[in-house]
Amino acid sequence: MERVTATYYIETPYEVTAAAEVLAGEQSSGTFVEVPNETQELKQRFAARVESTEFLETVNTPAIPGANSRSGQYHRAIVKVSWSIENFGFNLPVLISTLQGNLYEITQFTGLKLMDVDIPDSFANHYRGPKFGIEGCRSLTGVPSERPLIGTIIKPSIGMSPEVTAELVKTLVEAGIDFIKDDELMGSSANSPFDQRVDAIMKVINDHADKTGKKVMYAFNISDEMDAMQAHYDKIVSAEGTCAMISINSVGMAGVKKICDRGELSIHAHRNGWGMMNRHPLLGIDFSAYQKFWRLAGVDQLHVNGIQNKFWESDDSVVKSIQACLQPMLGGYQVLPVVSSGQWGGQAPETYRRTKTTDLLYMAGGGIMAHPSGPAGGVVALQQAWLAAVDGHSVEEATKIYSEFAQSVQKFGTKA
Amino acid sequence: MERVTATYYIETPYEVTAAAEVLAGEQSSGTFVEVPNETQELKQRFAARVESTEFLETVNTPAIPGANSRSGQYHRAIVKVSWSIENFGFNLPVLISTLQGNLYEITQFTGLKLMDVDIPDSFANHYRGPKFGIEGCRSLTGVPSERPLIGTIIKPSIGMSPEVTAELVKTLVEAGIDFIKDDELMGSSANSPFDQRVDAIMKVINDHADKTGKKVMYAFNISDEMDAMQAHYDKIVSAEGTCAMISINSVGMAGVKKICDRGELSIHAHRNGWGMMNRHPLLGIDFSAYQKFWRLAGVDQLHVNGIQNKFWESDDSVVKSIQACLQPMLGGYQVLPVVSSGQWGGQAPETYRRTKTTDLLYMAGGGIMAHPSGPAGGVVALQQAWLAAVDGHSVEEATKIYSEFAQSVQKFGTKA
Repeated sequence: MERVTATYYIETPYEVTAAAEVLAGEQSSGTFVEVPNETQELKQRFAARVESTEFLETVNTPAIPGANSRSGQYHRAIVKVSWSIENFGFNLPVLISTLQGNLYEITQFTGLKLMDVDIPDSFANHYRGPKFGIEGCRSLTGVPSERPLIGTIIKPSIGMSPEVTAELVKTLVEAGIDFIKDDELMGSSANSPFDQRVDAIMKVINDHADKTGKKVMYAFNISDEMDAMQAHYDKIVSAEGTCAMISINSVGMAGVKKICDRGELSIHAHRNGWGMMNRHPLLGIDFSAYQKFWRLAGVDQLHVNGIQNKFWESDDSVVKSIQACLQPMLGGYQVLPVVSSGQWGGQAPETYRRTKTTDLLYMAGGGIMAHPSGPAGGVVALQQAWLAAVDGHSVEEATKIYSEFAQSVQKFGTKA
Repeated sequence: MERVTATYYIETPYEVTAAAEVLAGEQSSGTFVEVPNETQELKQRFAARVESTEFLETVNTPAIPGANSRSGQYHRAIVKVSWSIENFGFNLPVLISTLQGNLYEITQFTGLKLMDVDIPDSFANHYRGPKFGIEGCRSLTGVPSERPLIGTIIKPSIGMSPEVTAELVKTLVEAGIDFIKDDELMGSSANSPFDQRVDAIMKVINDHADKTGKKVMYAFNISDEMDAMQAHYDKIVSAEGTCAMISINSVGMAGVKKICDRGELSIHAHRNGWGMMNRHPLLGIDFSAYQKFWRLAGVDQLHVNGIQNKFWESDDSVVKSIQACLQPMLGGYQVLPVVSSGQWGGQAPETYRRTKTTDLLYMAGGGIMAHPSGPAGGVVALQQAWLAAVDGHSVEEATKIYSEFAQSVQKFGTKA
């Protein structure tokens, strides 16, 4: 029988192997006394199994409070635990409860992070995964594989009317942008009801497509309760849009999966709230595991932050996230990494140098909107930044070749 | 215009007020440069507002990595920030993204926890809240207000066939239990397909109700993808069950709300995964805020751990959680606190002494199943424990009055 194997980074005041056995026990049997009916045969079939433990180091201060060591020592290790797929079948919420449930509360641990998960082949028969993925998003926007999709976010995040937003969209599409998105704070506000926003924006995008053949992808934020999300989705489809955005952590797995299953629109997955699950090195879930759950659910685009971002995340971590998204899963399940946060083009050479890929949706907010030559100059500057990056040029070399990019460096360069 | 006010516990290497302004800015406007279209009028209407900052202390080590202080000092404070309800309307996922979104990733913070949220009155017109609540769950089970509902969990968590499970349910209902639940690891396993489990168990429960008039509440774990949850829900309704259980963190807000909206079954909300969001004192979300979101969604029963639990959580924290659930919200929205984890009755006197309430679902797993006189003795012992608790008796006094409870003390007393 196939098994799902999870890799955890743990810290424990107990002996590492004993702590790992507690984890396996809690997540497959789980009570503090022996009970009737738990036969050996049953244990053999359904019990979680500790596959390996790799000791790393011993420290003197616990990473997280809630358990004390009599010796004052806390041991860190990588442990692998596996479950038979018979335990949960094909049910992502129960899989998540098994891999990430009560175990964060166990006193045997003063730190626990789900680092990765191996998904067995049979999942490919039950989860379609991303309907569009990298190739589908390129095809919808007509962007060739030589460069990333260039995108931007409507700012201010909230407060603009549909008409003012559509005016800005008009400027951006005429400047040659590939992708635009709502902010995650913008759902259906008093000042910008969802349907009116879709109508105003899609008129601009469709008119431009009719004239030029280029259809800009706009990710409307449909995040809401279930019926409202479905209605928002319908509205985008009927207005001939190509993308919906969901705040995946706020909406949750069941809701996101249900929307992805429709398959008429590409799904832009915003991971806001992610810092709560990941910022502590010894608590929560690593992006390597996280992105697999959402690829199974079927999102087509997934946020990864960017090089030299304005948030806490290190460049190494961002590079690792991009690589995780591009690693084939079950032989496919492509998801397009969305690079964002404080991006303005100056990070393109370093992003390319470290990832050697153009399969990105490269997002700049202020970096486009506040460009000295206006949004049109901002879009051109980003395209130039990526031409330079792929040609192996440094930021400084690129400024000598491209004037709009040189303007970006002058305005935003000190922020990086 | 009404406002939603959130209280955060923050730690920052910056001046506290400046950091609070960054939070408010990121969560309502949010880019690193001034952009066109952001007029003063628009800012006035949609910008988040720092309502107050209360400095607490300065420490020398950051709670969470990712930002450095040049001075080596990190300031802790309570800050209150408010948003106009115009920003999100009545949309729980967007409200959550606003209150808990990107702000965990901001470098201005080396710690951030959402402690509480004030929900304005108009929410009462848009959210029905718990359909059954405390009174409804008492009415469905016929348990008078003098004592808590006594419940148990089927163990082993996973692996028993529907027939063996139904046998155990028969023993428990005959012993006088009020409530039984699936484990959160048990969805629809190879060995216990959901529909077969419902049929086998509801036959026992319905037969017992026909004979005695007492209908035991069984919380079947419907956690799954959306359509499967709906089908599971239908199955319970058609088998005349009264409750469905959902792992709320694994399923997510949109899915849980959609199920709660049906209102035919009481909803048992399991919070597994909660440790990831709460175990660190300066990261995530406090239960006071968490439980409000789920009451709005409409869950009827919500886990709070228990006194002297087997997990990391302190008794003080558990007491605060019980009190939070019992505090009326918008004039009602009752939710029944589910006390569990390592409970066997010995904690009843202390639980009552500290909370002065019997409005609880008091759950014991091994404490019932492994009682020396069998499950029937375990149920009786728990009822005795609560009689004693309400009468103001200590554990020791209670052992002199009640023999089954005395057996519990002998077997489980050293575990407490």
